[in-house]
Amino acid sequence: MKKEAIAAHFRRLQVQICTALEQIDGSGRFAATVWRRPGGGGGRSCSLQQGHIIEKGGVNASAVYGKPAEVLRDAFHLQEDRFYATGLSIVLHPWNPYIPIIHMNMRYFELSGGRSWFGGGIDLTPHYIDRAEAAAFHRGLQQLCEAHAEVADYGRFKAAADDYFYLPHRKETRGIGGIFFDRMQEGAMSQRWAFVKAIGAAFLDLYRPIIQAHKDKSYGKSARSWQLLRRGRYVEFNLLYDVGTKFGLQSHGRTESIFMSLPPQAQWYSSPAPKPQSPEATTQQGLRKGIDWTKSV
Amino acid sequence: MKKEAIAAHFRRLQVQICTALEQIDGSGRFAATVWRRPGGGGGRSCSLQQGHIIEKGGVNASAVYGKPAEVLRDAFHLQEDRFYATGLSIVLHPWNPYIPIIHMNMRYFELSGGRSWFGGGIDLTPHYIDRAEAAAFHRGLQQLCEAHAEVADYGRFKAAADDYFYLPHRKETRGIGGIFFDRMQEGAMSQRWAFVKAIGAAFLDLYRPIIQAHKDKSYGKSARSWQLLRRGRYVEFNLLYDVGTKFGLQSHGRTESIFMSLPPQAQWYSSPAPKPQSPEATTQQGLRKGIDWTKSV
Repeated sequence: MKKEAIAAHFRRLQVQICTALEQIDGSGRFAATVWRRPGGGGGRSCSLQQGHIIEKGGVNASAVYGKPAEVLRDAFHLQEDRFYATGLSIVLHPWNPYIPIIHMNMRYFELSGGRSWFGGGIDLTPHYIDRAEAAAFHRGLQQLCEAHAEVADYGRFKAAADDYFYLPHRKETRGIGGIFFDRMQEGAMSQRWAFVKAIGAAFLDLYRPIIQAHKDKSYGKSARSWQLLRRGRYVEFNLLYDVGTKFGLQSHGRTESIFMSLPPQAQWYSSPAPKPQSPEATTQQGLRKGIDWTKSV
Repeated sequence: MKKEAIAAHFRRLQVQICTALEQIDGSGRFAATVWRRPGGGGGRSCSLQQGHIIEKGGVNASAVYGKPAEVLRDAFHLQEDRFYATGLSIVLHPWNPYIPIIHMNMRYFELSGGRSWFGGGIDLTPHYIDRAEAAAFHRGLQQLCEAHAEVADYGRFKAAADDYFYLPHRKETRGIGGIFFDRMQEGAMSQRWAFVKAIGAAFLDLYRPIIQAHKDKSYGKSARSWQLLRRGRYVEFNLLYDVGTKFGLQSHGRTESIFMSLPPQAQWYSSPAPKPQSPEATTQQGLRKGIDWTKSV
């Protein structure tokens, strides 16, 4: 695979996913912004705000290249002269607190020395954990990995997501995780690419039923308030720990595109711990590493 | 000065400031939480939520000590065996968008090798810049520094605040700055302490007239929305760049106390740039380094 072909695939997938999401949403429309990076490359950021189902969502494709800034060389231990990075990132923040936040990322790096690798993943952040839904989501990812067993290992990738999407200061995971992988070494390049493409192709199949299940559920002020609190945790993770955010800012990417992951609204009122046995408390208990969600129901 | 006397002063000042703020607010009451740090020390966090004037405010005193974690040793280049850190931090987020956010910090560090230093500062983050008010605020700080000329230098401390409270990814300062200093070396220990105490004593004199000037101003949805956007920038600074937040999290401080600086609500809707000549655009133009606010009117 040539890097240009990978970038082109990401751009096509961006269009497909945006079109499908508009259809699902019913009223929201993605607005596209094309941007150039002074050092080389650029991207196309698609943003939907205040739709019928999606309160704020971003579907961003980019391909940037050039000389790594010194700070990046240090942070990513790059000795090479030039880098190329292309990716597709999605984050959707729904209005309805019963619909989880979803995040997907596919990325490809290439260095002038010849090294190259794929990374990516997909993970779910429910404001309210639904165990049957968590099981279906993780089983879907497990099957996806099994169909690409030469390169993908659900157990390992699931554990990596647990480790990565973790807020040490809260002692909680960001959500119920999913799969996360970086610097894939197994198998042939073509097999890795087939796996990464399969994740992209599975995105809508995984998220559409989740939206359909909850989109018409009514909710009150306290559910909205809990959602805004959970979104605050999402902000904390993305600004304090997320490597993509750090890479984006340090490589002087477009700030609005990098921050598409941030929720439309969030809150940091300090509130009493949820009542025992409440849906909020049950959710809180599910925000830890090592739960085998495939067996959760 | 002994470190215990410094910590005791911070605790007394905390009580005085909380009492005065409750009086100014009229209805809000601070709730105190006492916490212990497993590695040594602890603190008292006072939090006021949904008062009449203050939407969320924190006034935190702490004194922590012990062995610096490895990560802190690296981050702060500490070779020493043991550290002692005591401080008082205030952040107030008012309801009314015309009242600026204020932040003050006073801190003292001591290392087992005998090194010790003061740090601190005070800065203002208006959602809407009022030039006369900015001038009065900065002139007040200038006079404060002039009264302690052996240790304090307004020009240098003002420039340090501009440099510190800066969001490179937005190319904007957090607000109109103020003064910021760290590892003070000038003068005698007693002179430094007198200056730090003077800042604490000046806090209410500086902020009270600002509250009084705006508290009864009416505002609409668009001003509230702009306030929530500006608060989003405040979150970005505090989670991405603030050294105090980093120190707090890495030294395993109490998360709720560290995050008292985060606003009650914030938003990240992407919005068109403010209209030229609007109060929002004028404010945006004022968010840069090097403005001599003392001469701004």
